[in-house]
Amino acid sequence: MIFGSDNQAGASERVLAAITEAYRCHDDAYGDDHHTAAANEVLRATFDTDLEAYFVSSGTAANMLALSAMVQPWDGVICHHQAHVLLDESTGPSLFTGGAAMMPVPERDVRLNPQAVESMLGRLPADAPHNVRARALSITQANECGQVYAADEIAALTAVARHANLRVHLDGARFANAVAALDVHPGDLTWRAGVDVMCLGATKNGAVAAEAIVFFDRSLADDFGYRLKRTGHLTSKARLYGAQFVAWLADDHWLDLARHANAAAERLRRELADLPGIRLAWACQSNETFVLVDRPLFESLTAAGVSMYEWYPDALPADERIGDDELLARMVTSWATSDAEVDAFAAAVRAHAH
Amino acid sequence: MIFGSDNQAGASERVLAAITEAYRCHDDAYGDDHHTAAANEVLRATFDTDLEAYFVSSGTAANMLALSAMVQPWDGVICHHQAHVLLDESTGPSLFTGGAAMMPVPERDVRLNPQAVESMLGRLPADAPHNVRARALSITQANECGQVYAADEIAALTAVARHANLRVHLDGARFANAVAALDVHPGDLTWRAGVDVMCLGATKNGAVAAEAIVFFDRSLADDFGYRLKRTGHLTSKARLYGAQFVAWLADDHWLDLARHANAAAERLRRELADLPGIRLAWACQSNETFVLVDRPLFESLTAAGVSMYEWYPDALPADERIGDDELLARMVTSWATSDAEVDAFAAAVRAHAH
Amino acid sequence: MIFGSDNQAGASERVLAAITEAYRCHDDAYGDDHHTAAANEVLRATFDTDLEAYFVSSGTAANMLALSAMVQPWDGVICHHQAHVLLDESTGPSLFTGGAAMMPVPERDVRLNPQAVESMLGRLPADAPHNVRARALSITQANECGQVYAADEIAALTAVARHANLRVHLDGARFANAVAALDVHPGDLTWRAGVDVMCLGATKNGAVAAEAIVFFDRSLADDFGYRLKRTGHLTSKARLYGAQFVAWLADDHWLDLARHANAAAERLRRELADLPGIRLAWACQSNETFVLVDRPLFESLTAAGVSMYEWYPDALPADERIGDDELLARMVTSWATSDAEVDAFAAAVRAHAH
Amino acid sequence: MIFGSDNQAGASERVLAAITEAYRCHDDAYGDDHHTAAANEVLRATFDTDLEAYFVSSGTAANMLALSAMVQPWDGVICHHQAHVLLDESTGPSLFTGGAAMMPVPERDVRLNPQAVESMLGRLPADAPHNVRARALSITQANECGQVYAADEIAALTAVARHANLRVHLDGARFANAVAALDVHPGDLTWRAGVDVMCLGATKNGAVAAEAIVFFDRSLADDFGYRLKRTGHLTSKARLYGAQFVAWLADDHWLDLARHANAAAERLRRELADLPGIRLAWACQSNETFVLVDRPLFESLTAAGVSMYEWYPDALPADERIGDDELLARMVTSWATSDAEVDAFAAAVRAHAH
Repeated sequence: MIFGSDNQAGASERVLAAITEAYRCHDDAYGDDHHTAAANEVLRATFDTDLEAYFVSSGTAANMLALSAMVQPWDGVICHHQAHVLLDESTGPSLFTGGAAMMPVPERDVRLNPQAVESMLGRLPADAPHNVRARALSITQANECGQVYAADEIAALTAVARHANLRVHLDGARFANAVAALDVHPGDLTWRAGVDVMCLGATKNGAVAAEAIVFFDRSLADDFGYRLKRTGHLTSKARLYGAQFVAWLADDHWLDLARHANAAAERLRRELADLPGIRLAWACQSNETFVLVDRPLFESLTAAGVSMYEWYPDALPADERIGDDELLARMVTSWATSDAEVDAFAAAVRAHAH
Repeated sequence: MIFGSDNQAGASERVLAAITEAYRCHDDAYGDDHHTAAANEVLRATFDTDLEAYFVSSGTAANMLALSAMVQPWDGVICHHQAHVLLDESTGPSLFTGGAAMMPVPERDVRLNPQAVESMLGRLPADAPHNVRARALSITQANECGQVYAADEIAALTAVARHANLRVHLDGARFANAVAALDVHPGDLTWRAGVDVMCLGATKNGAVAAEAIVFFDRSLADDFGYRLKRTGHLTSKARLYGAQFVAWLADDHWLDLARHANAAAERLRRELADLPGIRLAWACQSNETFVLVDRPLFESLTAAGVSMYEWYPDALPADERIGDDELLARMVTSWATSDAEVDAFAAAVRAHAH
Repeated sequence: MIFGSDNQAGASERVLAAITEAYRCHDDAYGDDHHTAAANEVLRATFDTDLEAYFVSSGTAANMLALSAMVQPWDGVICHHQAHVLLDESTGPSLFTGGAAMMPVPERDVRLNPQAVESMLGRLPADAPHNVRARALSITQANECGQVYAADEIAALTAVARHANLRVHLDGARFANAVAALDVHPGDLTWRAGVDVMCLGATKNGAVAAEAIVFFDRSLADDFGYRLKRTGHLTSKARLYGAQFVAWLADDHWLDLARHANAAAERLRRELADLPGIRLAWACQSNETFVLVDRPLFESLTAAGVSMYEWYPDALPADERIGDDELLARMVTSWATSDAEVDAFAAAVRAHAH
Repeated sequence: MIFGSDNQAGASERVLAAITEAYRCHDDAYGDDHHTAAANEVLRATFDTDLEAYFVSSGTAANMLALSAMVQPWDGVICHHQAHVLLDESTGPSLFTGGAAMMPVPERDVRLNPQAVESMLGRLPADAPHNVRARALSITQANECGQVYAADEIAALTAVARHANLRVHLDGARFANAVAALDVHPGDLTWRAGVDVMCLGATKNGAVAAEAIVFFDRSLADDFGYRLKRTGHLTSKARLYGAQFVAWLADDHWLDLARHANAAAERLRRELADLPGIRLAWACQSNETFVLVDRPLFESLTAAGVSMYEWYPDALPADERIGDDELLARMVTSWATSDAEVDAFAAAVRAHAH
């Protein structure tokens, strides 16, 4: 009963076979291989646009490298108050950008709200060169709280950004889950809606380790090879990433995997409606689900082999409170989650609730 | 006829099978998985000592992270004038260390010489805080010019370092080739000879992408997890590296692969003794061979499908000169180089020499 | 009628004479001069303790250098939500520390509250190495909102910090004003209350450009010369700072200047009680005064030659709101503010209020 | 008998009076004051061109800030093998530029030679993104060895740089001495000869602490205020620098001071021709003189109160050797050196030579 994170799952057989196949012969190093080129082609077809993609082994690296190409060391990046780039990447974004600051929207909401971003921009100290200059907006899709943004919501956010001269970054560690949930064209959720650079994650959704930095605005990719190299992310036998991406994107394999993960989450959320001692914290549409759980139940479930993480209480909306005897937790399903696993979880809750 | 680099080879079947096996089930993320733990155990057994190892996807990352744990931002790292950390990692070492400088030994020699290091240390400007403070010595094994250092030579270098209060880093991107060439215990070439931290590369010798940062001095590993994380090198499904290392080290597989590469290089060097228009630039003992080639022959060979790289002329010892009509080139064999490939190369030289 | 900032004032004659005197002969460079040594001695006497002091030309430099000696690049510094190190030093603190993050206490209060700091520490994500590790607390005295902390309040804050393994930094750009307002021994407000490193500013209080970084915990000053040098803050003819500090501290000159500035502020605040269209935003005890002003009045005053700055609305406590037709503004008096200037201001308000 | 450095001298009365005068009234902060504006005007008149200047307190800060505006973090700066930016600024240039490397011309010559720079550029490893990309040339005038470059020599160097797409920085810590020695228009030695950005030092030549970063190419000054601020070099009461520069440049005061220092050096060099146990190491034209001294004589002179620094032996040209019983030393005269001091030195040598 593993609901800790989708990065605890293994990898799909297609992806594994592609890696094995790619390493059975010689190929050029440092991204000059056939697989890197092919992955760029497949990404162009998938997003239906010209683009330039680079590949790394972690989502943290992808986000930090992308941001480093978008802002100056004295700039700031506006983001959700629970954003991965703010909370979960140590002080790496500052290292990669040469010092840029993450600027969380102060309102505690489960989604980025264009009005909140606009209001924040209006209130920011802006006395150059003393104050940090906001220069990018980072959106996460599927977002930090398991929700997804429709294409017009992305467009509304990027419109606010554009008006304030901000570039737009999209953290797509779970972008596949968002596309699967919304059933729209990936281009509609990204470049057509005003996104400049996105990070597209395959790792959490069936790959071994494969994250793409996708430049829709190719002018931002100038000198990007130097950024990759000097951060140690220019892998020598770089075919590892291209091979995974080609296999992952082929035949909508990525969306099949994501649909599976989403469906497992839906099954879980349906069960939650009837379970004692545990309840949805808010509505979710991706493969992440946030719950409020009675503390004794959480402990019993953990002891019974259920893996799920207690979550930051500050993720709750400003107008909600956790009771003293409950906690916020996150449950993540993956492409590898079985119906049986969800059902076993429901049975475990029923068995251990008081 | 691929002699460009050992990082153009594929991966061994054992390593590929290990990756596939590792990703067929769930496991914990961020290095808390079973494979990372197992790789640490196998490394302890291989080096016959307590040690602490971390894993990344590139040798550049390994070197930079290792150095960042060894020096302060105002320190310098003494290294060979052709060292990878000096020439081939862009300005990454400075980024990772917060500013530390690489300090090449000025003498143009094909190997680091303890007397040259000592003499350099005696001449360095040392007016604190104006001048850079030398604080580490980086040794490459097998070295930048395809040679290897015997255990007592390593010990002589580390003794000079220790006397000057320098820590010792060993860049072991081709350490397997050195161990195979010298046929000594890995511990004798490292911690028993005074090395504090080594980077052990598997990538060039049969792995997909796997480099270990091995702390023999575990006190230097304090907070190292933060260094990994904030540089984007804490991969989520980190079993990728542990799985490769376990398979690579098991049953002396790493040494079998390295012996193969070295034997192919020996076969090549025997052929070179009799070939027209091309000659050994200096003696080599690993899987790298450096040659002086007539320019027209080099071009004919390239046209005929031979891959080998023209090399930095400054790699030549100070007392040697390249003729106007020849160039320095590097030829690298790998675990995947066949005898037939070497023989075909010799035939090609005979066919194209004038 | 200059109330914009105390850094718009000139310098006291004593300080100017000391500079002139110091530069009439030769002296050693880079801080090895007699004035730097003398300033250290005078600071030891003033604070009644052993300490080590370094000198720079700006408060921003002093703060950033001090913090760089207190935290690692992956650490965070807890501070007030209006702190200078957070808002007014661009992304410099990150540059100097190698990446460390400023972590504002989320509660909007006009002073740092030990309970709020403790509560924040309890809620911070603390999953190493993913989250930023809080490692220092920065206190401003006199504080960001013109208030001062009594010695026992400083001690209460440092106790919370010590309990969480945080070091304590004190930003004393207006420390003289705090000492003058509280009339206590400088040691009681600093090292005796648990402060590790303070920045003592003379610039705003009668000097030309002179800020001291004072290490009460001298172990934190290791290698500090390198920090000064590589940030360009090791001035060659460094006597500039020592000469100013000696003159400034002699005969309680610094406190006389601060008392004058505070008295002018008190006079201003007394006037405000009776003035139309303008009112105190909250109680103040130093030379800074925060007011809520009717917008038309603010504009009339500006046109009439009154200099004062509109201030960040987020500086207001969480439970206060600014009306649409008023704004928050800051008024600063200095050692050079005359009674006549305050009186002229009061007359101007009466003349222009509607 | 102080020949240690020109930064051990005091400041000229004109400069001191200007500082005192500037701080007798209020003025705006952070460079918005009247003196900063006036200094820009005077610099424009002095160099006879449009330019944009910023002011800081140390030559190290000026150089590092200038370079940070000229190169990317993955670039390199070609410089003399004894350049201040290479040897005497710790690892600050790397910090300020975000990682850029200093690349010394390997030939040991007392001056930068256009052919040597061109040859170096031709041999540099240039495999992007692995190798450092040369992007700027830094010239020192008067140079590291006390010599000066004529206008056409500067132009020859900048032509080589321009051809290789390098920008040109001029470290003018002793630029006044060069102008005085060459008796040419300052514009002829800088922008008319192809210099993009220069650092003009007043500190060593009569000021208290005043260095200008002068952008002849104003496009490079974009966002420069942020660079100043985040490095702590945006002084609040910034009039300090403008006031000094205006006084220093007025009525050719800067050249008068420099001529005095140069004349003292000439007197010294004339004496050296006849002195026992000490001889010129090479020809010099500025206020710096390099000598080879018998070790016992050096020690006797030091004991007798002569201050002069033993110098880096690597500063000697490649074809010169220091005898075991002598050492290289530097002697610097200043605007404050008297004839009597030079004569006393000559007498001391005669008295102590064996």
